[in-house]
Amino acid sequence: MSESLTSAASLTFSEAQRILAVGLAKAEEIGQPMNIAVVDAGGHLLAFGRQDGAIKVSIDISQRKARTAILMELPTAALMPLVQPGAELYGLEHTSGGLVAFGGGVPITRNGTIIGAVGVSAGSVDQDVTVAEAAAVALETATV
Amino acid sequence: MSESLTSAASLTFSEAQRILAVGLAKAEEIGQPMNIAVVDAGGHLLAFGRQDGAIKVSIDISQRKARTAILMELPTAALMPLVQPGAELYGLEHTSGGLVAFGGGVPITRNGTIIGAVGVSAGSVDQDVTVAEAAAVALETATV
Amino acid sequence: MSESLTSAASLTFSEAQRILAVGLAKAEEIGQPMNIAVVDAGGHLLAFGRQDGAIKVSIDISQRKARTAILMELPTAALMPLVQPGAELYGLEHTSGGLVAFGGGVPITRNGTIIGAVGVSAGSVDQDVTVAEAAAVALETATV
Amino acid sequence: MSESLTSAASLTFSEAQRILAVGLAKAEEIGQPMNIAVVDAGGHLLAFGRQDGAIKVSIDISQRKARTAILMELPTAALMPLVQPGAELYGLEHTSGGLVAFGGGVPITRNGTIIGAVGVSAGSVDQDVTVAEAAAVALETATV
Repeated sequence: MSESLTSAASLTFSEAQRILAVGLAKAEEIGQPMNIAVVDAGGHLLAFGRQDGAIKVSIDISQRKARTAILMELPTAALMPLVQPGAELYGLEHTSGGLVAFGGGVPITRNGTIIGAVGVSAGSVDQDVTVAEAAAVALETATV
Repeated sequence: MSESLTSAASLTFSEAQRILAVGLAKAEEIGQPMNIAVVDAGGHLLAFGRQDGAIKVSIDISQRKARTAILMELPTAALMPLVQPGAELYGLEHTSGGLVAFGGGVPITRNGTIIGAVGVSAGSVDQDVTVAEAAAVALETATV
Repeated sequence: MSESLTSAASLTFSEAQRILAVGLAKAEEIGQPMNIAVVDAGGHLLAFGRQDGAIKVSIDISQRKARTAILMELPTAALMPLVQPGAELYGLEHTSGGLVAFGGGVPITRNGTIIGAVGVSAGSVDQDVTVAEAAAVALETATV
Repeated sequence: MSESLTSAASLTFSEAQRILAVGLAKAEEIGQPMNIAVVDAGGHLLAFGRQDGAIKVSIDISQRKARTAILMELPTAALMPLVQPGAELYGLEHTSGGLVAFGGGVPITRNGTIIGAVGVSAGSVDQDVTVAEAAAVALETATV
């Protein structure tokens, strides 16, 4: 019973593994090795993978993207215009232990509630977003 | 007697609670859940509340806004033009352990002396400022 | 509906306020001003209060105690023997961004699931534990 | 060709996944949910998993154990006597960004060269070591 409560509110590990697997497959499909991080509803890491050839700087960036998506309740791509010089949230990235404002962090929802997030990094921002969006809907599309 | 001295120089906890309560009520009134932090004249946290639905990134930001208002002796909104590229205090946010330069941090004064500050975060900057300004004058308007 | 899911999995703000109020009342009852922090199931701050006369070092300690109780799924008092020189987890406090291994952090449970935690600091460890334990069961005893 | 060079010098992602899978299976076998981190020869994260029920404090600890094993070129369990008060490396944990000196971090070798490490955390130290040692030899025992 306590398990079903947890399951309702946040990703399970097996769900995180499925999300990671979908993300890794998408990265292979587009030919760009990636770092992919999956966090729970509280922003805590559940699953991570770094493919051969993916740059190491993205170990940290992918995890920060996922955490930023949790803390902001938004895809990180939505933050980019807001943190520019002159814009409303200029300087936001320096709060909360360090946030990332470029695309590739996407919340994962169930019945309208955020239950986790995925962060992808190592490619162009477009590639990162493509892989993150594919991973973020893995539970909806999976026929398991 | 030492209490009246303290009361002159800095917020008491009961005053901080009243300020927090006024801020929370204002947030409800405008329909935007908020993180609200009240700090003393030294910038140290006295009272804090995060309403259901307020984004978690603002736990940190609201406290930094209040602390920035103490350290700068200014509302944080006044800093925004000063920290832009090319402006006089460009990079200020990276000092003193991390400051916030967007609106929502407001000093609280008594007889012209700063006795604390309030920081509000989770809405638009306009909303944050609205709630912070209402909270910052709570002691003046309260009929206690 | 998404609200009831959240409510099942983690403390609401109104619950956190009740827990804080019970802790503050207990601190008054034993005559020791306290810092009291209430965090959600992910370790994120929900409510905080520092009573007049409570030392400022405990602003940080109370929050770390609450966070430690979440991350360890244990009252912090249980950690003290484990982190001593020669004991199994010697050095534990230096991990996860800084933990606290002395008493005063207590998990809050509902139906066997941890839904948050309270951290209390400023008195002796015995006093901190007394107040934290009273606060941690506030929801069970409240007749609201 | 550069791939075979890399393969000689450090774990590949597919090897890291195999090591992680063996560790996760061992954790299930002994009935203790775990955090398991696999890092490359430079100490950089390759793969990570947190099983349902594993405490969150070990997200950080498992990664630090693996990194410590790389930096020291030793199983972390070997460090425990050395960091005690009065012993030769007292205070070691506070260097290099934070090390962990209790068991559960184990180097992974190929032909006598360290090619990565695994860090396991969430159980007793004995359980952590059991799972880490099983994972660390996954490549030798696998019939792939």
